[in-house]
Amino acid sequence: MVLIALYVVAITAEAMTAALSAGRRDMDWVGVCVIACVTALGGGSVRDVLLGHYPLTWVRHPEYLWITATAALVTALIAPVMRRLHSLFLLLDALGLVVFTVIGCRIAQEMQLPTTIVLVSGMITGCAGGVLRDVLCNDIPLLFRKELYASVSGLTGAVFLAAQTFDMHLNSAMLIAMVFGLAMRILALRYNWQMPKFVYRDEWR
Amino acid sequence: MVLIALYVVAITAEAMTAALSAGRRDMDWVGVCVIACVTALGGGSVRDVLLGHYPLTWVRHPEYLWITATAALVTALIAPVMRRLHSLFLLLDALGLVVFTVIGCRIAQEMQLPTTIVLVSGMITGCAGGVLRDVLCNDIPLLFRKELYASVSGLTGAVFLAAQTFDMHLNSAMLIAMVFGLAMRILALRYNWQMPKFVYRDEWR
Amino acid sequence: MVLIALYVVAITAEAMTAALSAGRRDMDWVGVCVIACVTALGGGSVRDVLLGHYPLTWVRHPEYLWITATAALVTALIAPVMRRLHSLFLLLDALGLVVFTVIGCRIAQEMQLPTTIVLVSGMITGCAGGVLRDVLCNDIPLLFRKELYASVSGLTGAVFLAAQTFDMHLNSAMLIAMVFGLAMRILALRYNWQMPKFVYRDEWR
Repeated sequence: MVLIALYVVAITAEAMTAALSAGRRDMDWVGVCVIACVTALGGGSVRDVLLGHYPLTWVRHPEYLWITATAALVTALIAPVMRRLHSLFLLLDALGLVVFTVIGCRIAQEMQLPTTIVLVSGMITGCAGGVLRDVLCNDIPLLFRKELYASVSGLTGAVFLAAQTFDMHLNSAMLIAMVFGLAMRILALRYNWQMPKFVYRDEWR
Repeated sequence: MVLIALYVVAITAEAMTAALSAGRRDMDWVGVCVIACVTALGGGSVRDVLLGHYPLTWVRHPEYLWITATAALVTALIAPVMRRLHSLFLLLDALGLVVFTVIGCRIAQEMQLPTTIVLVSGMITGCAGGVLRDVLCNDIPLLFRKELYASVSGLTGAVFLAAQTFDMHLNSAMLIAMVFGLAMRILALRYNWQMPKFVYRDEWR
Repeated sequence: MVLIALYVVAITAEAMTAALSAGRRDMDWVGVCVIACVTALGGGSVRDVLLGHYPLTWVRHPEYLWITATAALVTALIAPVMRRLHSLFLLLDALGLVVFTVIGCRIAQEMQLPTTIVLVSGMITGCAGGVLRDVLCNDIPLLFRKELYASVSGLTGAVFLAAQTFDMHLNSAMLIAMVFGLAMRILALRYNWQMPKFVYRDEWR
């Protein structure tokens, strides 16, 4: 099925960008693999643990662990080439975001959870991996500071749900949501769209 | 029931203080909402995941997600006014701590877990949300460095258990524990009570 | 059984080293206890939550919480003496690593999970506690930067699995894996073995 192919592309892309993050922190090869697995598979794992949806994806399909670890090691080996592929990676990363989001929404729908939770499940699947990566690399999660990452994930889920309420076929709804989310993300990157920030200083009190 | 009303007040208060934390880190509005939800509902979620108590509170009651997100956005809008309400917030935050603790103890009791776990469940429910907030904001969790936060939570749970062993009615035991915990917390803040610290320096070796 | 005795020694050792970490961050006594419990029991908890293996060890055996908390407080009291026992602690910590790893592998085997997951379960059990400690103390997890910690855990699990495929008795396989892992760890510390690092700088772009 196309969604599985897209999922494999997505976890590979996430693993590769995560490996670059780990490299910025001078981690050793084991660290690079761990960060890659956590980033690529962590969003789905957090979702499954919170929803009680056992067994987790990578427990049922251990090959995903090998794919992400291999992608991370290859990235470490060919890092100098990666720099030229920067735009390609931003695109693949955006693809990962929308694929993860739609999969997360679907799983919550299959568990027949309420609509709010379907949306939240999509956002957790799309974003939690990156948050875990930033926590393990001791950064303030980028998600909360820049880029429309979480917003794009939420909007993708909303379009997916809206398309379904208009009696659209499941696959069409997925396609529309993913194309919409991808376009939003690319536009956000291209024109540097940002959410308004909330800046609060106690010190002025 | 009164406990539910108190719970809603507590998650609102926690969401608002969490939003101020997020504002100190210049997060955007999505970040503010996520930090607020994680802080207000994270303690209960960690408890439920560790005890295997599914489904989680916010999965069954998605309205709690909306309440916390709304409270956080309102806080971002009216932040300048918040400064004057500082004492009120400390009070509501203390209320949150004792309410969460008692609820956490109750849930472990309903699962018929041993007494130690009942106490720990109360402490996790009361404190884990704040720890998650500090980890996501890249601070050393405040819990472990200042204030009698975790100690008050532990004592509240202990009073709650002690009151029950004296054949007291459940509601009375809850009330006594919460009043006691609230008093302890306010006194700790007022007189700046602190636990002894453990300071260890390898460098002197 | 010998394995339980080794497990108790291991959680005590992990609690003590975690208490020293907490002391380096000037935490109060509650913080010291929490960090100790999370470090000693966190690896097993993360494993059980990810594999859906309920109830967690410390929920079934609350005495482990008391053992770790007591060990942490004793450490805080006799910290000046600890400095002289530095080598003993490195040894006990290495023992903890291999004991946790073998226990983690066994639990995944008893759940009849695939071989990859058995290895990963061992590594999570061995290493996740230390990662949680570093995240709570706001460090970049040491695991990903120095020492052959995770690698030793992975190799210990691999030897354990290999020994079983040669029709070896379970206890012999455990013993061989633990002796091998302990030797690897001690050699790694003694000769300062390190994994190659992946250093990546965007700034050079």
